[in-house]
Amino acid sequence: MASKQSNGAKDGEFDLIKRLFAPFADASTAGDLQDDAARFTSPPAHDLVISTDALVSGVHFPDNAAPEMVAARLVGANVSDLAAQGAMPVGCVLTLCIGPDWDDDFLDAFAAAFKHCLARFDMPLWGGDTVRGAQSLVSLTVHGIVPQGEMLARAGARPDQDVYVTGTIGDGYLGLHHALNQTQGASLQAYAVPNPPIGFAQQMRQLCSAAIDVSDGLAGDLDHICTASSLAMRIEAARVPLSTEGVAVAEAGDLASLLTGGDDYQLVLCADTGRGDEMAAIAEKCGVRLTCIGRTVAAQKGAEMAEFYDAEGHLIDLPTRGYRHF
Amino acid sequence: MASKQSNGAKDGEFDLIKRLFAPFADASTAGDLQDDAARFTSPPAHDLVISTDALVSGVHFPDNAAPEMVAARLVGANVSDLAAQGAMPVGCVLTLCIGPDWDDDFLDAFAAAFKHCLARFDMPLWGGDTVRGAQSLVSLTVHGIVPQGEMLARAGARPDQDVYVTGTIGDGYLGLHHALNQTQGASLQAYAVPNPPIGFAQQMRQLCSAAIDVSDGLAGDLDHICTASSLAMRIEAARVPLSTEGVAVAEAGDLASLLTGGDDYQLVLCADTGRGDEMAAIAEKCGVRLTCIGRTVAAQKGAEMAEFYDAEGHLIDLPTRGYRHF
Repeated sequence: MASKQSNGAKDGEFDLIKRLFAPFADASTAGDLQDDAARFTSPPAHDLVISTDALVSGVHFPDNAAPEMVAARLVGANVSDLAAQGAMPVGCVLTLCIGPDWDDDFLDAFAAAFKHCLARFDMPLWGGDTVRGAQSLVSLTVHGIVPQGEMLARAGARPDQDVYVTGTIGDGYLGLHHALNQTQGASLQAYAVPNPPIGFAQQMRQLCSAAIDVSDGLAGDLDHICTASSLAMRIEAARVPLSTEGVAVAEAGDLASLLTGGDDYQLVLCADTGRGDEMAAIAEKCGVRLTCIGRTVAAQKGAEMAEFYDAEGHLIDLPTRGYRHF
Repeated sequence: MASKQSNGAKDGEFDLIKRLFAPFADASTAGDLQDDAARFTSPPAHDLVISTDALVSGVHFPDNAAPEMVAARLVGANVSDLAAQGAMPVGCVLTLCIGPDWDDDFLDAFAAAFKHCLARFDMPLWGGDTVRGAQSLVSLTVHGIVPQGEMLARAGARPDQDVYVTGTIGDGYLGLHHALNQTQGASLQAYAVPNPPIGFAQQMRQLCSAAIDVSDGLAGDLDHICTASSLAMRIEAARVPLSTEGVAVAEAGDLASLLTGGDDYQLVLCADTGRGDEMAAIAEKCGVRLTCIGRTVAAQKGAEMAEFYDAEGHLIDLPTRGYRHF
C-alpha cells in the first residue's frame, strides 16, 4: 500500500512529475502542473472532442520497446483518434504507470520523446498522474476541437459513396513483426512512429461524410463504418495501397494479413463521387497519399460489412477481420 | 502481444465495453460509445477544468477490494479534484486495465457501482479504453466547467485569511486500516466511499481565494497551498475536526497520523475574514460540516508551510507531512 515519506518537498511523485513533465507542460492551462487540474477555454462555436487510448507493455508494444517508440505510439494512436473526427488537437492528459522495468534513464528518455511527439502535433500537455505498478502502462486522454456540428463520425456514410484510405496499409502489421523479431525493414518506422494525417483530416470535414482511423486492421475498421452507417462496402483489394515491403508480402500470398493487421493509424474516408479532385488536391498539398479503394453499397440487415474482391471479381475470404489486443 | 480474433462482431474489447459501459454512456456526447471519441459543447463563457487520477490495485486500494470500493474511490478521488477547483462535473473518460484477478462477476459489479457513482455526481461517461494487464488499474479523466476566470486554485491565498476545512480529517487514514485489516469502524465508509463536497465547492468560488482537496494528508496539502501562494499557515490542531473514532485515536496520542494520513477527500478553503457567516450558511444548506482551523500568515522564503500548534501554543512536530503512494 501507500508508503509514508518523510518530507513533502522530497516526495516521489511530485518530484518525478516536476522533473519529467513540468518543464514542458502548457503553463496557460496546466499552471506548471501545480494544481491537480488544468483549465481550457474552448473557442466559441466549437465542439470539444475527447478520446483516450491506453498501451500496456507486452500487449500493445514489445516489453523491451525503446522509450521513443512507446512515446511515439502513445501519441500517434491517440492523435489518430482525433484525426478520425476531423479534430484539431488542443491538449492532453497523461497517465503513466511505471513498472519495475522502467528506470530513471528510461523515464528521462520517454519524457524527452513524449515532448517531441506532442510538439510535432502541436498538442500541449495539460497534466497527468504518475503511479507505480507491476507492469508499465501509458494512457493518454486527448482533446481536440471542431467547428460546432462538424465532427466526422463513423455513422455518416451513405450508399454509393467512394471509400478512400490514406497512406499505405499493412505497414503497422509488418513493422510490429520487425519490432518483435528485432529485424529491420522500412515498415518498422511506420509501426514505431505512427504518423496520422491530422492536418489533412481537418480539411476533410466538409468534403467527407464518414471517417475512421485504421487502428485495428483495415477490414475490421471498414466494418465499423458499415455497422454504424447501416451499409456494406465493395473494396477492390488490388487498389489497396501497399508499400514496397507490403507488395512483396502480398505477392508471397499473405495479402490477408495486411488487410486485417492493426496499427496503421491511417484514415478511411467516405465521400460523394465528385469530391475526388478536391480531396486529391488537398492530399497533395498535405503530402498525404490518398487512394480510392472501393464504394459503399446498400446492405441487407445483418450483412453490414466490407467485402474485398480480387482483380477477377472473386470475393476474398479473409480468415479474420482485424487485430485485437484482447 | 495482440491476438487475432476470428470475428469482428465477437471480439473481446468491443463486446466487453458494449456490455459493461455502453448501456449508461451519455448518448449525446459519446454516441453510444460507438466512435472512438466523444463530443462535448462547452457552454459560452465557461472554462473547462480537466483532471486525472489513476488507482493501482495493491497500491491505491487493497488488492482484495470489493468492486464497489474501487468504483467509489476512483470516482470520489477524481470528483474531489474538480471540487478543489470549484468546478461542476460534466463528463469523464475511463481507462480500465483488467488484471487476472478481476473476473466477469467483478467487472459486472464494478460497472454497476461505477454507474451509480457517476449518477451520484451527475457526471456522464463519455468513453474510455479497456485493456488487459498483469495488474488491475483504473484511471479516470474528469471534466468540469466553471464560469470563465473563476476557477479556484492553490495559488490564490493571501496572508491573514481564514483557513477552513470541510468534514472530518483522518477518517480516510483510519478507514484504510480497517480495509487492510478487515476490521469494522465508522471511518471505513469514509475510505470506501469518499464524498467530496462538490456542490458546496461550486458555491465557494466567489467567497474563497484558494482551495485544495485533502487527498495526500492535511499537512501536506496545506503545504501545497502555502508553496503555491508563497505564505505559511498557523493551524490550531485542537480545532481540526475529528470523528468520534478520530477523537479516540487523538486521545491515544496519534493525532499526527490523522493530520498527515491521506484519502480524506475533504476540501481546504482560504477566505478573507468576514466571509465566515456566508460560508457557514451555505455549508449548512449543503449539509457540509465547515470548520475554521487557523490562519494564513506571511512567510520567510523557504518556510512556506503549515505549522500546527497545540492548545498550549506549542509547535507540534509532525514526523511526516503526508501520505504518498510513491
